[in-house]
Amino acid sequence: MDCLFCSIIEGTIPSDVVYENDHVLAFRDVDPQSPLHILFVPKVHVRRFSELSDPTVQTALFQAIAEYAQAEGLEEDGYRIVINTGQLAQQSVDHLHLHLLSGRQLQWPPG
Amino acid sequence: MDCLFCSIIEGTIPSDVVYENDHVLAFRDVDPQSPLHILFVPKVHVRRFSELSDPTVQTALFQAIAEYAQAEGLEEDGYRIVINTGQLAQQSVDHLHLHLLSGRQLQWPPG
Repeated sequence: MDCLFCSIIEGTIPSDVVYENDHVLAFRDVDPQSPLHILFVPKVHVRRFSELSDPTVQTALFQAIAEYAQAEGLEEDGYRIVINTGQLAQQSVDHLHLHLLSGRQLQWPPG
Repeated sequence: MDCLFCSIIEGTIPSDVVYENDHVLAFRDVDPQSPLHILFVPKVHVRRFSELSDPTVQTALFQAIAEYAQAEGLEEDGYRIVINTGQLAQQSVDHLHLHLLSGRQLQWPPG
């Protein structure tokens, strides 16, 4: 199976890792849309949001983002989490990933 | 405590409810940014994403969105989930809410 994010998780493609726990890896987006733009991905290959049914991994994603945001001091100014599913949302890699954006004023609507 | 979403959950302020489970209520955004724009809120009052530490409610949010998306046939065309924390992301109500947007082509960057 040829998955970009699985290769990053395995370490065969390099990435700028900023956070890791048992079930989640987080690294910088190579095409950042804000001064801070991180991708949080489950280590298990899951194509999309609705296919992640393991509660252990679900809660690990919450924990990963909360811990990272607090460690980086993002709570005061704020940040946006974005999860794209499918073509209408421009999901670019078929491995679930949560975008965290911060470091600039974000606009509304969200795309 | 004067919270708009707590009043909606209690039923003292009307809303257009589209989904409910034990821990989550979902209703239409009154200022929709896409043909389909739903808010998923935990029934317990939690100010922001990082303050939701109860794994039961975390997994209920995943389940709510996955069930709703599948029931409404959103999986094929796609949808975007957005969670705003704080001023930079324009969080408008201090009760955690997950936006689900679909029904039109969504742009990138996400705001």
